[in-house]
Amino acid sequence: MNGYRDLRVALLGCGSVGAQVARIILEHGDELAARIGAKLTLSGIAVRDLDAPRDAPLPRELFTTDAEQLVLGADIVVELMGGVEPARSLILRALEGGADVVTANKALIAAHGPELADAAEQVGAQLSYEAAVAGAIPIIRPLRESLAGDHITRVLGIVNGSTNYILDRMDRFGDSAEDAMRVASELGYLEADPTLDVEGYDAAQKATILASIAFHTEVPVDAVYREGITKVTAEQIEAAKHAGYVIKLLAIAERLTASDGTDGVSARVYPALIRREHPLAAVHGGKNAVFVEADAAGELMFYGAGAGGSETASAVLGDLVSAARRHVVGGPGIPGSAHAALPILPVGEVSTSYQVMLEVRDQPGVLATIAGILSEHGVSAANVEQSVSTRGDDVAAGAPPEEPETATLVIGTHTAREADLAATVEALRESDAVTAVVSVIRLEGNS
Amino acid sequence: MNGYRDLRVALLGCGSVGAQVARIILEHGDELAARIGAKLTLSGIAVRDLDAPRDAPLPRELFTTDAEQLVLGADIVVELMGGVEPARSLILRALEGGADVVTANKALIAAHGPELADAAEQVGAQLSYEAAVAGAIPIIRPLRESLAGDHITRVLGIVNGSTNYILDRMDRFGDSAEDAMRVASELGYLEADPTLDVEGYDAAQKATILASIAFHTEVPVDAVYREGITKVTAEQIEAAKHAGYVIKLLAIAERLTASDGTDGVSARVYPALIRREHPLAAVHGGKNAVFVEADAAGELMFYGAGAGGSETASAVLGDLVSAARRHVVGGPGIPGSAHAALPILPVGEVSTSYQVMLEVRDQPGVLATIAGILSEHGVSAANVEQSVSTRGDDVAAGAPPEEPETATLVIGTHTAREADLAATVEALRESDAVTAVVSVIRLEGNS
Repeated sequence: MNGYRDLRVALLGCGSVGAQVARIILEHGDELAARIGAKLTLSGIAVRDLDAPRDAPLPRELFTTDAEQLVLGADIVVELMGGVEPARSLILRALEGGADVVTANKALIAAHGPELADAAEQVGAQLSYEAAVAGAIPIIRPLRESLAGDHITRVLGIVNGSTNYILDRMDRFGDSAEDAMRVASELGYLEADPTLDVEGYDAAQKATILASIAFHTEVPVDAVYREGITKVTAEQIEAAKHAGYVIKLLAIAERLTASDGTDGVSARVYPALIRREHPLAAVHGGKNAVFVEADAAGELMFYGAGAGGSETASAVLGDLVSAARRHVVGGPGIPGSAHAALPILPVGEVSTSYQVMLEVRDQPGVLATIAGILSEHGVSAANVEQSVSTRGDDVAAGAPPEEPETATLVIGTHTAREADLAATVEALRESDAVTAVVSVIRLEGNS
Repeated sequence: MNGYRDLRVALLGCGSVGAQVARIILEHGDELAARIGAKLTLSGIAVRDLDAPRDAPLPRELFTTDAEQLVLGADIVVELMGGVEPARSLILRALEGGADVVTANKALIAAHGPELADAAEQVGAQLSYEAAVAGAIPIIRPLRESLAGDHITRVLGIVNGSTNYILDRMDRFGDSAEDAMRVASELGYLEADPTLDVEGYDAAQKATILASIAFHTEVPVDAVYREGITKVTAEQIEAAKHAGYVIKLLAIAERLTASDGTDGVSARVYPALIRREHPLAAVHGGKNAVFVEADAAGELMFYGAGAGGSETASAVLGDLVSAARRHVVGGPGIPGSAHAALPILPVGEVSTSYQVMLEVRDQPGVLATIAGILSEHGVSAANVEQSVSTRGDDVAAGAPPEEPETATLVIGTHTAREADLAATVEALRESDAVTAVVSVIRLEGNS
């Protein structure tokens, strides 16, 4: 297609993430090719069981059980098997053959990251693992590249969605630890054996990776101090709330000077209090966030989904496109930003909703008139409220009402075309029932 | 030094950002060289006035008024002059000469981004401008690279710190619009002519850049629909608060299908309501944040400082290191993450603070005993509180007190060494005054 060269991509593993990655490569091939300047060809998917059910419909002929053979012919290897072996050996073989490697395997990177990074560097190949920490959230690349000229002093991460879900339920709904665990388990937030999550082992692996990258140093996972959430009680959560705090399980990586003057780093995982005004306190449910403090940049936070098949696939694909780009241009850039040439639509085409504050005549039939104006323009009201106005307060305080015959209405609309909403407001302004359109404001951020 | 090759960096402009960039290149040269694999040599700083005061002490011999000459001999040009000309011509000249270019110039990128990107692509040079949007926050690179394999559907940005400061004051302190403007002006958040900020022109430039990158298409700044914050009233803010919303000035870039079926994009800036639970609602003061929605990644947010000399310098340096790395390895990678080899310090060396919940004998002298134990270990209390315990509730409800002689104390400590705090808790546990150490939890996230 379009004279693009082919880049052969070997996929190892086809669980929920692998199936999404394969699906996107197959379904969005043209769009990816335009972005990369080369075509990604899925040369095969290595699996243990050819007949296992998959999360996406994929051509059967892509599957193979011979991962070693598949790796040999690949330009880029995407490892999504999990676990240390055979993932480690296959990645080493791929790197030795000069292939770039993308992996989401946090256990492997936490245990063997430096060995694999060295192997990549020796042959000038690229090893990337954005998906290994905090799922969809771009954090590895910002730490390694965007902050490469800065001096990171501390990283505080909510990097385990299951435990954040449990602690958040206890904080927001007053659940006991047992109840919150049970709900998390029912919703699939916890593995059959929840130890990896609730005892902080998963977070400790991520702390290792974050500390290694933030401080350009090797941090063995054994060196991470670790406490889980199993001792956190509803009483503690309540006392924290009372004092203006929330309890979060944090993975912390910090530059530190020891009492004897030694310059070093600390990596640790434990439940800790966070002020309610801190951006990390607003990380609810199963979401993840990584808060970074750097000398020049100050405070940064990266927030998003920490897990999930398609979310993790997004991070894997970002790494994959980046590796592929390197084959094309020898650099990280994405081609000129203007290749899509999409039309810019006028604001009238936007779908949004309005909150309109009106001053209306306080007499029978006014609401019906206003409702009629909305429906004429295909706009429906989500809610209508008589607002507490300053004038009302004056009345309550005994002052004589200045214009007793008006009332203030706040109408929230359902989503509609901006052009229809604007026409509705114009019609309201001209209606005899309305004495003034006090304010109009859009509502954004809903899905 | 260490046989590294030199990369000549030409700096154009020496305002607050430029002075910080120059300072860091000069002061942290060895650390940057280790990260890059090449030494950054500041070949000169082009300024209009050789004798103007600078934000950092810099060697006088670096300064020149001949920007064109400086650009000619550079491997990487860092443009921090601002404005369209002569910045545009100098950047084009640099790119034509094969130099990589880093710029923080949002006005220039908003107006001429596609032209400059094309010029860079023709010669295989790199043009980067992370600092042009949202200051220190890595957003350009995540959008271009991390999300390169995903499909972005919407970007909602709080990208102007001045207007966010004003709206936040009105929301949190009940300021009138005039009072909030005055305070913002006094604190230096507003320019002498605040029009660029409060009328949304600055945010519109950033909307252009975000939309172009998110959707791989050209979005002229004239095509951005724009409303500023000058019509936002205290009454609106109050009504929004009452209804569970907060008003933010948003720069919005969105994939959209028009009513006639045309696939296109919308870029717009206006004040809008956001639910208080939305992550953007927690962006206070002069901070910036960019909320991104993508098909696979779901919801992401990038948060941090949107302006400031050292903050912006961090983003510029990230781009500079990335460009320099490309000269060394032909790729974006940072060398193996383990070059610093820092010691991993035990958790006892960490400085933190504790909140300790104790059950104590309710008798005279107990507080003095506990205070004595803290001070013996060099730990001081920040606050001590008698907590409302369930047992206390039982008493209030008329149930007979089970252990009337105990009380519950919550002690918050000042920051101390973890080892000292742990020893303090051990001593409290062994004290006769304490019947039980109910819970111990650390407090994190303070500066």
